[in-house]
Amino acid sequence: MAQAPKEIEQLIDLMARLPGLGPRSARRAVLMLLKKRVQVMAPLARVMASVAENARDCQICGNISGAEVCTICSDDRRATGEICVIEDVADLWAMERGQVFKGRYHILGGTLSALDAIGPDDLRIPALVARVKDEGTREVILALNATVDGQTTAHYIAEALEGSGVSITSLAQGVPIGGELDYLDDGTIGAALRARRQF
Amino acid sequence: MAQAPKEIEQLIDLMARLPGLGPRSARRAVLMLLKKRVQVMAPLARVMASVAENARDCQICGNISGAEVCTICSDDRRATGEICVIEDVADLWAMERGQVFKGRYHILGGTLSALDAIGPDDLRIPALVARVKDEGTREVILALNATVDGQTTAHYIAEALEGSGVSITSLAQGVPIGGELDYLDDGTIGAALRARRQF
Repeated sequence: MAQAPKEIEQLIDLMARLPGLGPRSARRAVLMLLKKRVQVMAPLARVMASVAENARDCQICGNISGAEVCTICSDDRRATGEICVIEDVADLWAMERGQVFKGRYHILGGTLSALDAIGPDDLRIPALVARVKDEGTREVILALNATVDGQTTAHYIAEALEGSGVSITSLAQGVPIGGELDYLDDGTIGAALRARRQF
Repeated sequence: MAQAPKEIEQLIDLMARLPGLGPRSARRAVLMLLKKRVQVMAPLARVMASVAENARDCQICGNISGAEVCTICSDDRRATGEICVIEDVADLWAMERGQVFKGRYHILGGTLSALDAIGPDDLRIPALVARVKDEGTREVILALNATVDGQTTAHYIAEALEGSGVSITSLAQGVPIGGELDYLDDGTIGAALRARRQF
């Protein structure tokens, strides 16, 4: 006995693969799409097909864009000699929302992880080393997540770049803007205290 | 300063309209799609476009299918003279999962609601009345939600069908299978007690 036409079941199965949606909420989402076939479903399918077709990984930094070289890498004003090393495209978007960094990026595509058997060659670390040499980069800013894997990766990169003469920095650790001490973990308070500054 | 290419932002905006996804989780879902462009994103876009194009409301019962008349309405074995009246396609899928009902459906497309100014003509109630007369239906089973609007609609339909000679029934109310009395609300316990049966 068919619960829903085969193609709709297939759509539900695919939607259920999205993070944040399970089988039940995927069903609910598809029902909503079926009710708004013209207003939402058709445009969504169109834009999704277009992105799936046109999106490319930037050859230089690994950012996702519509061309072989992304808008940031092809913008001469951003050739500041600074490269910000990040894990993921999401981190690039987060940095850009901050509107402070004016240089270029290098997306690793993950972090080193012994557990998941991810080594330096699975990430874009060799490309980073080559890039630093070729572009005569002045400063590499390690903006990796403050997790064990993130910090392991940062140390590995710092070693790999040793002797290239580039200055290697990392994001400051401390109390987040608007943060209340009472809600902060001990590690953050400790880091903020150790890195205290003249007021 | 662009956070993400325009088309990707547009995709995030459309995804954020789905129930269960907000702007943040839509962004996360799109990032996952971007990483799995070939395995997930392209097939999802393709199936979605196909469903958006091909899905039709069944002319008879209002079910969603790939044809003018849905598989249930075109299946002669389901011409049992019973019509199950439900609010929504989701309810049809739920009934079909139960695998007990062997007749046909009639989807109203909502419930009467004074607050939202939804009257009988906004629902498929006139179509139901005509259908009962034309098909010589034996029994109309009102399987509307046990909410105020659902029950108002049930009463309205019962009145509209008065004099047509059809038998009008509704789903039994009582303790759900596997239900524990301790967790049931007073209304359900009251209904179950009033409708008690010989053991």
